[in-house]
Amino acid sequence: MRSTRKGRTRIHKRLFSVLITFFICSANAGADAPVSETTEACLECHASITPGIVADWQNSRHAQVAPAEAVTRDVINRRISVDEIPAGLAEYAVGCAECHTLNPEKHNDNFDHNDYPVHTVVTPPDCAVCHPVEEAQYRENIMSWAQVNLSENQLYQSMMQTINGMQHFRDYKMIFDEADETVNEQSCYFCHGTEVTVSGLETRETDLGEMAFPVLTGWPNVGVGRINPDGSQGSCSPCHTRHQFSIEVARKPYTCAECHKGPDVPAYPVYSVSKHGNIFSSSGDKWDFVNVPWVLGADFTAPTCAVCHVSLVVNEDEEIIAERTHRMNDRLDRRIFGLIYAHPHPKSPRTSIISNKNGLPLPTELTGEPVAEFLIDSTEQVQRNTSLKKVCLACHGEQWVAGHFEGLRKTIEETNAVTLTATDIISQIWRDGLAQGLPQGANVFDEAVEKMWVEQWLFFANSTRFAAAMGGADYGVFANGRWYQSKNIRQMHDWLQMRRELRK
Amino acid sequence: MRSTRKGRTRIHKRLFSVLITFFICSANAGADAPVSETTEACLECHASITPGIVADWQNSRHAQVAPAEAVTRDVINRRISVDEIPAGLAEYAVGCAECHTLNPEKHNDNFDHNDYPVHTVVTPPDCAVCHPVEEAQYRENIMSWAQVNLSENQLYQSMMQTINGMQHFRDYKMIFDEADETVNEQSCYFCHGTEVTVSGLETRETDLGEMAFPVLTGWPNVGVGRINPDGSQGSCSPCHTRHQFSIEVARKPYTCAECHKGPDVPAYPVYSVSKHGNIFSSSGDKWDFVNVPWVLGADFTAPTCAVCHVSLVVNEDEEIIAERTHRMNDRLDRRIFGLIYAHPHPKSPRTSIISNKNGLPLPTELTGEPVAEFLIDSTEQVQRNTSLKKVCLACHGEQWVAGHFEGLRKTIEETNAVTLTATDIISQIWRDGLAQGLPQGANVFDEAVEKMWVEQWLFFANSTRFAAAMGGADYGVFANGRWYQSKNIRQMHDWLQMRRELRK
Amino acid sequence: MRSTRKGRTRIHKRLFSVLITFFICSANAGADAPVSETTEACLECHASITPGIVADWQNSRHAQVAPAEAVTRDVINRRISVDEIPAGLAEYAVGCAECHTLNPEKHNDNFDHNDYPVHTVVTPPDCAVCHPVEEAQYRENIMSWAQVNLSENQLYQSMMQTINGMQHFRDYKMIFDEADETVNEQSCYFCHGTEVTVSGLETRETDLGEMAFPVLTGWPNVGVGRINPDGSQGSCSPCHTRHQFSIEVARKPYTCAECHKGPDVPAYPVYSVSKHGNIFSSSGDKWDFVNVPWVLGADFTAPTCAVCHVSLVVNEDEEIIAERTHRMNDRLDRRIFGLIYAHPHPKSPRTSIISNKNGLPLPTELTGEPVAEFLIDSTEQVQRNTSLKKVCLACHGEQWVAGHFEGLRKTIEETNAVTLTATDIISQIWRDGLAQGLPQGANVFDEAVEKMWVEQWLFFANSTRFAAAMGGADYGVFANGRWYQSKNIRQMHDWLQMRRELRK
Repeated sequence: MRSTRKGRTRIHKRLFSVLITFFICSANAGADAPVSETTEACLECHASITPGIVADWQNSRHAQVAPAEAVTRDVINRRISVDEIPAGLAEYAVGCAECHTLNPEKHNDNFDHNDYPVHTVVTPPDCAVCHPVEEAQYRENIMSWAQVNLSENQLYQSMMQTINGMQHFRDYKMIFDEADETVNEQSCYFCHGTEVTVSGLETRETDLGEMAFPVLTGWPNVGVGRINPDGSQGSCSPCHTRHQFSIEVARKPYTCAECHKGPDVPAYPVYSVSKHGNIFSSSGDKWDFVNVPWVLGADFTAPTCAVCHVSLVVNEDEEIIAERTHRMNDRLDRRIFGLIYAHPHPKSPRTSIISNKNGLPLPTELTGEPVAEFLIDSTEQVQRNTSLKKVCLACHGEQWVAGHFEGLRKTIEETNAVTLTATDIISQIWRDGLAQGLPQGANVFDEAVEKMWVEQWLFFANSTRFAAAMGGADYGVFANGRWYQSKNIRQMHDWLQMRRELRK
Repeated sequence: MRSTRKGRTRIHKRLFSVLITFFICSANAGADAPVSETTEACLECHASITPGIVADWQNSRHAQVAPAEAVTRDVINRRISVDEIPAGLAEYAVGCAECHTLNPEKHNDNFDHNDYPVHTVVTPPDCAVCHPVEEAQYRENIMSWAQVNLSENQLYQSMMQTINGMQHFRDYKMIFDEADETVNEQSCYFCHGTEVTVSGLETRETDLGEMAFPVLTGWPNVGVGRINPDGSQGSCSPCHTRHQFSIEVARKPYTCAECHKGPDVPAYPVYSVSKHGNIFSSSGDKWDFVNVPWVLGADFTAPTCAVCHVSLVVNEDEEIIAERTHRMNDRLDRRIFGLIYAHPHPKSPRTSIISNKNGLPLPTELTGEPVAEFLIDSTEQVQRNTSLKKVCLACHGEQWVAGHFEGLRKTIEETNAVTLTATDIISQIWRDGLAQGLPQGANVFDEAVEKMWVEQWLFFANSTRFAAAMGGADYGVFANGRWYQSKNIRQMHDWLQMRRELRK
Repeated sequence: MRSTRKGRTRIHKRLFSVLITFFICSANAGADAPVSETTEACLECHASITPGIVADWQNSRHAQVAPAEAVTRDVINRRISVDEIPAGLAEYAVGCAECHTLNPEKHNDNFDHNDYPVHTVVTPPDCAVCHPVEEAQYRENIMSWAQVNLSENQLYQSMMQTINGMQHFRDYKMIFDEADETVNEQSCYFCHGTEVTVSGLETRETDLGEMAFPVLTGWPNVGVGRINPDGSQGSCSPCHTRHQFSIEVARKPYTCAECHKGPDVPAYPVYSVSKHGNIFSSSGDKWDFVNVPWVLGADFTAPTCAVCHVSLVVNEDEEIIAERTHRMNDRLDRRIFGLIYAHPHPKSPRTSIISNKNGLPLPTELTGEPVAEFLIDSTEQVQRNTSLKKVCLACHGEQWVAGHFEGLRKTIEETNAVTLTATDIISQIWRDGLAQGLPQGANVFDEAVEKMWVEQWLFFANSTRFAAAMGGADYGVFANGRWYQSKNIRQMHDWLQMRRELRK
């Protein structure tokens, strides 16, 4: 029993230390880390020019703990992953200058700002000075390739154009114009990340007289796979929201929901109706979202997205249940996001290199077989699934967990089969020339009936699988799942019947 | 004024006692109830095997208050409804063994586990040892019949099959295969409850050597009408989430949202945009969700689902405003969930026994008349509505409440009438043989135009009524209500016109 | 640095004062403002008749601070905008009688209630006794005209009728009946506001014997543009929820969400997936929602709806970033809610006076040009946009903000262009007589294909623009934006093609 009582005792200790901390802090509001001279210079103006940024940063751990202090903690409690802090950075708060003047030689967006070499866009290599392990992992995370994987994939590009492009109506026909790049940036690249480039310098009148600033294209953007002016890919701020970079925010599901809420990737809406989501919504206000490592049972009692996919999770004896990873597919054996079928996870995060038998840049054939050579094998699948299950098993029995994953497996089988039927119908429609698609070498996403086919796998099959993966109850039926899956396919068939009769 | 000032004084007293409690608890983390020898044996291994479950239970009232102590409180403050606790259970915390070894002779899933007779699936009759009144009420609650009412109703079964079943496309025709039972369990039965049966024993290698466990089908599941291995129906854990069984979680609307969020039963989305939902979202963090009885004004200032439908609610003088009930339709005079029209509440929770003039297992005729013999009469309706209104009247004047229910009455009348029109259209379509339905003895849910008819009553009429019932503003118009009601019926008509012209 | 450290010191001071306050309050629960004799009389009965209202009010600032005290604060900290409180109101809590017996001569709903002249419906002119500036601003706010702008606009009325009206099916034709007024009140007027009139007196049996009450039509309602029995327009309680009138509730986005959540005005769903919404959801529990003025950085670190559109926002030196305004379009240069295109904001809040070249009561021509004479000019647009940007610039650099608004501008251009294409298609359909619309002088909203056209601008273009305005990520693509925009227009075209072939 001692080990299980530990949890409550911890909570009491923590509450007590909160009170103590409060009184100490009240008496001594100057407990922050010392601020470097350069950052002082920034703050002198920016405290009044951009007070929100400065106040936000003041509330951050970056303002409170210097790297030299952070590095003294036990490895398991550490929030930085470097052993040696570069000279000049160790003793000071991680302030404006510490990040925005790093690696000036690599930053195309670097400019002279009151005699300091400043760049606007802080990038993963900048963060890697103190967080190299996370940066290296994230580089291999599929998310850091989100811009590349979209921009390099001709099939996805053709879909993007049919969504964002301009359609005109002339002489009873639809005329198509390519989308403006700004529109693409407001649309798909908002989450995937834009390419941020420097197109010149502009001079602006400011409170402090005339000053020159670089002109950035594709800006602002905080997409996960952003191409940065220093040539790097990705961004840490989609999850580690500026300028508090709060681990609490990153660990809450609202952060993931920014990009994972639509019918294509309904992770958040499914989570929110799951038992886990209910516990988070109902009890999460009493959890500790800041502690490192994150203690299951003591700090939280149900998973958020971060628990299963990212965070370092331990039990009350500090035995590791899940390793911290920023290569978030480390515990994912499959992509349930169908392209166009659910499939084993790709080996490389650069998915645009994949090519199926038809020469299409897809991880599955149109008939459903995975394109094995580009995907992880079953050994790796089992390994990843076993890592994930370790999290489940901390709160659930073997049979519960096995039953859950068997349900998911069946759902994948089922939804893949329905997607095949929908693909059979659209293929017949193409063969009969009732729409122009693959056989005609035409865009496969632009006509009305083709868009029904897209919704079949991109919305309804995906939603049904997400619901099975997280216990999303009605989300897999009437909210956005099997009801629409079964209805949409009949509407495709109805369309085909009507057109065939018309032709007669 | 004295009585009204009471509320604030209570809050101050409560805050004060929180602080006191905190300091006492800090000093004495062993204030929990004593743990039985058998539960000690469970914890010895499970504290490290399933630390999440153990930690969760440690935070529960079950771990902190022994039944013998719980029963000493005044009836109105009591959280258990039994007077005599069986010997052996009274003095100990309600731990692992207290629940998982109860009634072994009745449990088909009972198995020898290190010489203890353990069962996996704790059922309402197990909980009834301490909570008999709640169990008896829930047995008469329509929710505990959710599995039976779906599996016994041939019409609902035919709908379920068209949603979950596999559709293939061959020679321009749709071929239909029955759904795999696992898929039904992932879909409809996820909320309705599965049938959990024992199909044998399996031996597994564990950290403690080889052990045998029963193999369960239909598992895991926490549906409200689950059929259990002891022959009972229902489950307490959909709302009283394991293993904290927190009354706070049960009283929060996120719990109900697990199953009541889709377009068929949009209780949560409607609540969330209602004035009541806004007050809960904006101010609920300051409410007391644990107090029994639940004091209106002092503990909370706007209803959650539980306030109107389940909880024991009193005013500050402890006069009862609403009785606690787990027969949740006690204060519901109608089902606004249309089958296919809104109708007076069924008499029996076993709705599968209902049969209308056409022999269909529906509480209404296709023309809208209620099937009176199976439904409560107007006297009972008035009585139930009066009980519900007592809750409303604690915060609203007579005329406000009367006006609200008159709006609901009109909305029911309106949406039933629109459903009748939709049914007139589909009936004509069937008569004309443009789809195969009732006259042909065919499935009435499988064709594209039939699915439009289903959405008319199952989604749009229902959503509109839920919005009227709870003040759901735009939810009854553009979000999922009258806009779609009026659009869908015109699309059905449009479909009919097109087909008739085609036939000519 | 001193100025930036100020924030944290403030927080500590505040926490400290919370603790102090708590102990003082515990000792002295009678710190409320004195209650007038008349209000005492109300409370004597209503404390037990409507305990919820009384408890709610007891928790309100109205119960705690008398106007005479409120008015002594510095102007920037003041919550009332009058200098001289009328005799008899100054020294007492703002209780039942203070509001419900004001201006009896103007209130048609005034009635004799135990010898007091009471009215049910408290109106903006009643609130204006202490809050005249807010009432005057709100009178010029487009929201206070929401009922008038809908009821006076014949085009909107025809849309409302096609949504709420009854449709019957006879001889293969749809027959249309006008909607019952109660249905309109449950639908559009729920948010827009009803017209509340007194139709007589009724006598009711009460606990205190027979009493007479006025009979109100259009009641209950808390719509923003309600027509009141004293002839005034609007209501304060949609946002300042009775009977706490809590500024915290008004400042939280859940309040706005009551009416701004549907696909036509998806402000809340877009906000909730934006970075700002994420920060609010993840960190808002630590913010101060009560402080006046509202201090950016110290009280909150990301905007809610109120920050940008309503509240008095200052920096830590109490320099004003945004003025308080209840004319909420003061910082809005455009309506992105398309009618049927996005357009410069109307000059007058009474939009029903607008008429375009075709004589339609719309702020744009069917071809997209704004009806300039009724709309603000570019100078005013720039001024309003500059005021709004001042809020953005407190946390973002110039280029960030400029880039954001350039993205919005492009999105407006794009979505307006797509709306034009959809309008071209429906116009062709009308010209060809395949549906009956403008050329035929028929209702333009009632047929199936016309409803597709409506969704094009009312749902998909609006949603796409809201997403661009607030950084709503996927909401502008798959959740409810460009995907549907591009799909719907192809479905309209598909419909046209099919009908043309049928006709041949």
